[in-house]
Order: sequence, then C-alpha cells, then structure tokens
Amino acid sequence: MGHGLFITFEGTEGSGKTTQVELLGEKLSYRQAVVVREPGGTELGERMRELLLTSGMELDGEAEMYLFMAARRQLLHEVITPALALGRIVIADRYHDSTLAYQGGGRGVPVAWPATFPRPNMTFLLALPVESGRDRQLRAGKSADRVERESIDFHARVAAEYERLAAAEPARFMRLDASETREEVHHKVMSRVSPAVDALS
Amino acid sequence: MGHGLFITFEGTEGSGKTTQVELLGEKLSYRQAVVVREPGGTELGERMRELLLTSGMELDGEAEMYLFMAARRQLLHEVITPALALGRIVIADRYHDSTLAYQGGGRGVPVAWPATFPRPNMTFLLALPVESGRDRQLRAGKSADRVERESIDFHARVAAEYERLAAAEPARFMRLDASETREEVHHKVMSRVSPAVDALS
Repeated sequence: MGHGLFITFEGTEGSGKTTQVELLGEKLSYRQAVVVREPGGTELGERMRELLLTSGMELDGEAEMYLFMAARRQLLHEVITPALALGRIVIADRYHDSTLAYQGGGRGVPVAWPATFPRPNMTFLLALPVESGRDRQLRAGKSADRVERESIDFHARVAAEYERLAAAEPARFMRLDASETREEVHHKVMSRVSPAVDALS
Repeated sequence: MGHGLFITFEGTEGSGKTTQVELLGEKLSYRQAVVVREPGGTELGERMRELLLTSGMELDGEAEMYLFMAARRQLLHEVITPALALGRIVIADRYHDSTLAYQGGGRGVPVAWPATFPRPNMTFLLALPVESGRDRQLRAGKSADRVERESIDFHARVAAEYERLAAAEPARFMRLDASETREEVHHKVMSRVSPAVDALS
C-alpha cells in the first residue's frame, strides 16, 4: 500500500462527512492530497453512482453490494493505489466500512473485507442520532436518493453497525460527535491527522 | 433452492455452449424450462453486458469480477430462484464457474463461491482445444468482444481451470468433448438430463 496516508470518513446521512472531507482536503492541499468520493471518481464509478442512487432500478441487496465493490476496486486501481505508492495523502468520502454498515448492518447481506482492499490508516466516524441527520438534510433542502429514502429502522441498523466497527478497531477509528460545530469537528480531525502528516515527511 | 432443476453450461469461446443451451431448451420447452444467459436476463444484467463486453472501458480484473457477480446475483433474485422455487427447470448459458475460470484462472483474481449462490444440480463442461474454439468463431464470422480478444495464454489458463473445477466436483460436472457433432453432444447431455427430469415429476 505504499508510504502515503489513507484517511477515510464514514457516517450516516447528514453527518457532515462531505464538509469535513472538503475542510481536510483544503488544509492538506499544499501536499497535493487526493480527495475521492464513493461511488465515483472513475468512469465506471460514475456509471455505478447513477445506477445505484438515481436509476430507480429495484436491486437485490447483494447485487447492490457487488456494484459498490466493483466501483471501489476500480477506484483503488485507477486512483488510490497509485497515489499511495507515490507517497500521497488520500482522503476518501466513504470506503469499504460503508458497505459493511449499509449492506451488512442495514440489509443483512453477508459482507467480508477482501484481502485486496487496503485498510485505511485512519477512519473518522461522524456519529449522530439518525433523526438529526435526516433533519439536517431536510433543512438543507436536499432531495433524497434511493438509500436516503430507506426507513428510520434501516438507518438505525447502519448507525449501530458503524458503532460496532469502530469499537472493534479502536486503533483505526476515531469516533467524533457530529452534533458539534464543523470547526470543532475539524479541529479534532486535525489533532489526529497532523502528527501522521508530520511523520510522512 | 426449491425443487426445480438447475442446469448450467460452461466452456471456453466457440465451444458450442449456446447451441447446446438452445437444443436443450427446445427439448424441455414442454416443461416450460427457463433459459438464461449471463450477463443479461435482467435490466441490470443487460447494462452490465454492455459495460463488460463492448464499452471499451479498461477494467481492473477484480472490478470486472464484481460486475459479473452483481449481474448474477440480480438474475438469481429476479429469475432463477423464483423459477426453482416453483419447481421449474432452469438452463443457464454460463454461471459462477465462468467467474472461477475467467477471473480466477485467467486473470489470477482471488474468487470464492458465495454461500448465497446456489450450486447447480448439473454442469456440462464443453471442452475443446483453445485454438479450435477460436477457429470456429473466425469461420462463423463472429466479431470478437473484449474477453474473446484476450491472448491464447489467457484462454489456455481458463481451459485449465475449467478442467480443474470439473475434476474437483465429478458428481456435478459432466465433461463433454465439444469437437463432436452438435447432435452427439446433445445426445450425451440428454442421457444425463432425462433421468433427472423424470425424477422431478
């Protein structure tokens, strides 16, 4: 996996992942940090994004899992692995923990972590009561995609699985309270990222 | 997996799988046998077929595997599982052994058999020297798709993996010499299928 630094952000809808990814990407732009979002970032990934989130196709939960994994594998192949091999910092808005939480925890599909998918060096879990996340999105006037329209029960199972994953790998996960301000959350993210970035150079 | 009968055909390019699937489908049409081809048979599968075989996209071997498995899972969900549950006969032109042979044997990707994918009751391997298959296709004037344009070495690795799979599961596999006439091959297929169909009713 090279000598770069692989940072991922995870959390349920409306937890502020994308904002934190952008803040961190700006802060590390002087190091040419690479920012990726899932699914997407490759031609295949963009096709999968359209198909998964907006096509309206009725998909089996396990078929959905394989589509996410196809997009992820292609993103690893085209972008993440080469960047890490060059010693770059990669910041990902969702990665394989999302599949474990959504398809595994949320839909009950058996999901494993393939040996060919590198583990991130650190993962920030933005934790928030499920209702708050939905409220945030409604207030922001965002229209809901296929996953976002799922039931409160589904999102509660996803959140519970995230908590379980974070507890199982405390060295990799940093759990953050997403109800704090974006500046407070960003400050905590930097407290973990800065020493790792300093250690790179 | 219900009380139907799940029959799959496997083999390298030009081995006559599609012809044998059609012959068997006609022979069993009085039983409303369901004939499927991979990838395809569902809206998702047809999109995957376009993407995998003709889009010209440069795909990572493992990403390709996940796309095939997504299409397969959706086909199981929409067509194969419901048909078998109703006691029907399902005849598939390729199934998960193709992924084991092409992505596993051919490209060296680690491939498993998911517990959620039912095993076929019987699988016919149409075995043919690789060069003969390519000659057949050229004579037939068929234009080559992405997989068919791979090297002779690739197709030799696929053929070797098929032989290994058939040897490992002799109760499921029936290996047939595809250089025989279509009628001879069909006769051998029926010698195995007929008793199983009789046992159904």
